[in-house]
Amino acid sequence: MRISELSERSGLPVQTIKFYIREGLLPRGVASAATRAEYDQTHLDRLRLIRALREVGNLPVAAIRRIVEAVEDPAVGLHDLFGTAQYALRPRVQAPEDDPDWGAARRDVDALIAELGWQVTERAPARDLLTQTFVALRRLDFTVTPDDLRPYVEAAVALAEHETGGLAEDASRARAVRGMLATVLYEQVLIALHRLAQEDASARHFGPS
Amino acid sequence: MRISELSERSGLPVQTIKFYIREGLLPRGVASAATRAEYDQTHLDRLRLIRALREVGNLPVAAIRRIVEAVEDPAVGLHDLFGTAQYALRPRVQAPEDDPDWGAARRDVDALIAELGWQVTERAPARDLLTQTFVALRRLDFTVTPDDLRPYVEAAVALAEHETGGLAEDASRARAVRGMLATVLYEQVLIALHRLAQEDASARHFGPS
Repeated sequence: MRISELSERSGLPVQTIKFYIREGLLPRGVASAATRAEYDQTHLDRLRLIRALREVGNLPVAAIRRIVEAVEDPAVGLHDLFGTAQYALRPRVQAPEDDPDWGAARRDVDALIAELGWQVTERAPARDLLTQTFVALRRLDFTVTPDDLRPYVEAAVALAEHETGGLAEDASRARAVRGMLATVLYEQVLIALHRLAQEDASARHFGPS
Repeated sequence: MRISELSERSGLPVQTIKFYIREGLLPRGVASAATRAEYDQTHLDRLRLIRALREVGNLPVAAIRRIVEAVEDPAVGLHDLFGTAQYALRPRVQAPEDDPDWGAARRDVDALIAELGWQVTERAPARDLLTQTFVALRRLDFTVTPDDLRPYVEAAVALAEHETGGLAEDASRARAVRGMLATVLYEQVLIALHRLAQEDASARHFGPS
């Protein structure tokens, strides 16, 4: 297909498609004449992936490029591929320098992960994300006990097992990659449903009947 | 205490505190001399709340002002207060104009909420958040069935019930307000733990042993 059809079918303007080609996110089309290039289904699939990552993951171009390169490279194992996609996600937080509250909270996070026996790298951004929330909860004078965390740990384990178990049954790399990306997108499903369920619970407990 | 001590104890620069006063987020201190004002524990508590909302909720000043005003106003019921806090949270998404995919996905979201019997307003931002993810999943050619959603719905309901049930036992408005804010902050606990649990599950299923 020509770039105009690719634009129509992907829902993206021609200029945006040309930008993605320049940025190395999308392979060039095959030249069919001096000023014409042909695109195929792989281009369309790639554009859909880029669009989903941009819209939902809110990812910058550099992060999308890293994910796309990892997807393309058969030497990147499934676990590393999943890490590439997940570590690119927002929100990310930067550890502040010289904040004693941060240091203490980070030690609690590391101890919690060790106690749960989870295999998580030292540089996993989610460690800092959890640290930031612990700091904020303490600034509001909330203590965070293992009992407070238990329902969240249980929900997280059940969902992660459900998500990864579904992938593990499938041997094909292409399908596993798609499934992993869905898993990353499902984080927002979880956030949205949690907020909706909170509103419903609040309405039932406190709302005008 | 003087503003210098308030700064030290809250961990916020004096300039930031003065900015919050100008913006109406923090009440002025009581003038104790022509160029001096006294601050007390209520100022410190308010600064901690503002800091937590800024850092974790990533909220703009206007949204924090709305929350602070709702907390102060005893005429605002607990359910409306919770809504004020929750509706201010990011990520927020804007419905695109004239996108047929969006319209279809939004109808699915509305049908899901109706089927679950959840009491959620039409203008709840989480409806659009869920709609956005449905659109993105479909662009990647994933169908989203009730079976796919069930584990997320179950986790969301269990957590919301745990969070709101804890609040309902407590009659005091001040404590309920604090608990609601914690509930909002715990969303990030859930996100972080979900990502950590995913990495662990991926390591166990796909990782180098």
